[in-house]
Amino acid sequence: MTLASGSCSVGGNGIEVVAFDGDDTLWHSESHFVDAHARFVALVSPYVDDNPSVIDERVVATERANLAIYGYGAKAFTLSLIESAIELTGGRVTSGEISAILDVGKGLLDHPVELLDGVEEVVARLAGDGYRLIVVTKGDLFHQEAKVAGSGLADRFSRVEIVSEKDVSTYRRVMGEAGVAPENFLMIGNSVRSDILPVIELGGHAAHLPYVYTWELEHVADSDAERMGFHELASIRQVPELLERLY
Amino acid sequence: MTLASGSCSVGGNGIEVVAFDGDDTLWHSESHFVDAHARFVALVSPYVDDNPSVIDERVVATERANLAIYGYGAKAFTLSLIESAIELTGGRVTSGEISAILDVGKGLLDHPVELLDGVEEVVARLAGDGYRLIVVTKGDLFHQEAKVAGSGLADRFSRVEIVSEKDVSTYRRVMGEAGVAPENFLMIGNSVRSDILPVIELGGHAAHLPYVYTWELEHVADSDAERMGFHELASIRQVPELLERLY
Repeated sequence: MTLASGSCSVGGNGIEVVAFDGDDTLWHSESHFVDAHARFVALVSPYVDDNPSVIDERVVATERANLAIYGYGAKAFTLSLIESAIELTGGRVTSGEISAILDVGKGLLDHPVELLDGVEEVVARLAGDGYRLIVVTKGDLFHQEAKVAGSGLADRFSRVEIVSEKDVSTYRRVMGEAGVAPENFLMIGNSVRSDILPVIELGGHAAHLPYVYTWELEHVADSDAERMGFHELASIRQVPELLERLY
Repeated sequence: MTLASGSCSVGGNGIEVVAFDGDDTLWHSESHFVDAHARFVALVSPYVDDNPSVIDERVVATERANLAIYGYGAKAFTLSLIESAIELTGGRVTSGEISAILDVGKGLLDHPVELLDGVEEVVARLAGDGYRLIVVTKGDLFHQEAKVAGSGLADRFSRVEIVSEKDVSTYRRVMGEAGVAPENFLMIGNSVRSDILPVIELGGHAAHLPYVYTWELEHVADSDAERMGFHELASIRQVPELLERLY
């Protein structure tokens, strides 16, 4: 959508730009959604006679059906929970319970940002080593900006790209805006679908840093790092060593 | 948040970059919110004994209270309507009525984009005349991208900036990214608060193009064009003439 600006360094040795996913890579996110989902289950389970897995299935199906109209993020999630509650309870959900779901959603939006282990040190070290650092994060613009601001890391990043979908065209634009060639670009994130595969397709470097939870809609059935040409990390603390290897 | 890239042309005659607000400048938006609000009033007014103005007041107060947590856009509006409905009805709102509010919100998100009169011709003409055109629009990232795509105008714009707030720092960044000096930048929009005043403060040019409705939270008490140094337009068709005057 936007034109590339800045000069593009073609070729050259090693990584110039290290891009980080935000949610579940720099800071906790999905764990809060898991907690929110548990609070939702507690609210509606008294109405549900069947196996409680129908609640999970209904929520995922509603989120999936609404994705094209709501997009990603906590407000979309809250609206899908309200819709799911009405369906799961056959309309018997009370307005007090709907209020409680609104509160669950607000809790997702205003909890403090909790950085993942090692993030602060590694980001500081990479910035000190002269790498240009950027954030490429998906979801709600307002909420993601608030999280970047609340992370205490905003000054470390030369760019923050909040995008609606992380696909090949998004990463092509991001690299263009940053003026970096794919071979000098490393993306680090927890989602193989969103952070890894499109970057690899463009000829960039990507490192997968799994989080304890993966959202159902981000699951990739087959994601073999070696065969697909990306790097599997156990900790963000391995990034400096990876950068040395890529030099 | 992002660093300026691209070279900045300092000084020079006339406007190089024409920036347009999206909602209610390029396409209808607030009229859809007014319709949505009317549908909401019809749903809850059977519960409200007092003067029906309490409904309007409650919705605006709820939106204002939630602005810092939800930000702008149709999903934020829908969540605030549900909260307002529960409060206005003393909790008696039914789940069927909540479902109807969810549908009102979805209607806001997926209606076709309707360009305002003259937009298509004027945008085509300015692009043909060699101006760089950009969109600077506020609100929900996913919805705004969908509107740009649905407008049929995406190819005319060299940049689309979807922002969470339109203030001085936002416009400074936008000008930096576009590589344009304030004196060569013209912003056109319907909101004095969001489209005009911050641009003027930066030394840029701004033209106010009023829409039939102004959202309560965008009202500016005092906005005298001549004294404040911006241009008042009656139609987007006056833009080419304004650009000649500014040359």
